[in-house]
Amino acid sequence: MLERIPPRSGTAFRLDQGQVLEVTDLEGCQVADLIAFAADDVREALSNGRTFDYEETLKLTTGNTLWSNRSNPMLTLVHDDVGCHDFLLTPCSEATFRHFYPEHPVHRGCFGNLAEALAPYGVEPDRIGTAFNLFMNVPFDGASGRIRVEPPPSRAGDCLRLEARMDLVIGLTACSAYASNGGSFKPIGWRILS
Amino acid sequence: MLERIPPRSGTAFRLDQGQVLEVTDLEGCQVADLIAFAADDVREALSNGRTFDYEETLKLTTGNTLWSNRSNPMLTLVHDDVGCHDFLLTPCSEATFRHFYPEHPVHRGCFGNLAEALAPYGVEPDRIGTAFNLFMNVPFDGASGRIRVEPPPSRAGDCLRLEARMDLVIGLTACSAYASNGGSFKPIGWRILS
Repeated sequence: MLERIPPRSGTAFRLDQGQVLEVTDLEGCQVADLIAFAADDVREALSNGRTFDYEETLKLTTGNTLWSNRSNPMLTLVHDDVGCHDFLLTPCSEATFRHFYPEHPVHRGCFGNLAEALAPYGVEPDRIGTAFNLFMNVPFDGASGRIRVEPPPSRAGDCLRLEARMDLVIGLTACSAYASNGGSFKPIGWRILS
Repeated sequence: MLERIPPRSGTAFRLDQGQVLEVTDLEGCQVADLIAFAADDVREALSNGRTFDYEETLKLTTGNTLWSNRSNPMLTLVHDDVGCHDFLLTPCSEATFRHFYPEHPVHRGCFGNLAEALAPYGVEPDRIGTAFNLFMNVPFDGASGRIRVEPPPSRAGDCLRLEARMDLVIGLTACSAYASNGGSFKPIGWRILS
């Protein structure tokens, strides 16, 4: 059954080893922040640094694996309609809203949404690090290092499927920031394929 | 007084707000992994994702600031002889030695050295995330996303100076991995300029 994350909100759930999580951009041009923790010890968490090191790339797609801070495989990307995701940036938060959107009302952002959703699993906010941001379009320049945040290229119905390599707690959002989704807030769909 | 970190080892120390840490590549072509925690609550830690977001670049040099997971400035780069540092990769560890250097003896790496040095400050190993790797040369390709690890361009006596923006606990190493320093292990120098 397809679950729906309303615009500017988030959720958390268990994903057991071998299960496949399918995340769908229901309307197109929307970002979903994903973080993952080992279900039996949430101090083991998704790590962009370990992932970049082992995968030898900053651009992750089908066949790549997301690694934990303890050097264990957490999730392998098994199907990717979009081929554009970000693993450089942290979830938007009250502080990033104040910094980047001083003209807009402050929102707790993906960070606040993840913190609330993950609290019942024993994940403290300080352990919510750099997220794997599905469909997020962050071009970087190899010479200058400059990064930009552009609208996602995903179209309605595009999905990414990730297979769990260990028992996990997943946090997942429909992103709340203006720049990451081209200025419109939309829902995100997800379901577990066993 | 100049302190010396012997090859393949690490240290930890307090750095108070306003003090400047000078890190010197004593012999040239060596990497130093640096991590930082808020002295009054080590759950607040250096964050590459927050830093990339606020600084809008992956390449950090004089004038750039390193940010915490709570969106506070931790360190500002105030002098840089080299202009080549990495903030994408995690410290080398037993697991990365097994992965990248199966023909060499396993070493606990910068991760093990940092874990031991930071334990007296109450920093658990799982909180040692992506480090700011001084002088480390990790070119990335904007089109493919591929990264490589090349020898550092730093010459003997080159230094980086970082000003503390809050009271900090610093972890610092002379890197233990073959690829990051061109295959030779050398010391790192540091001192605090008040």
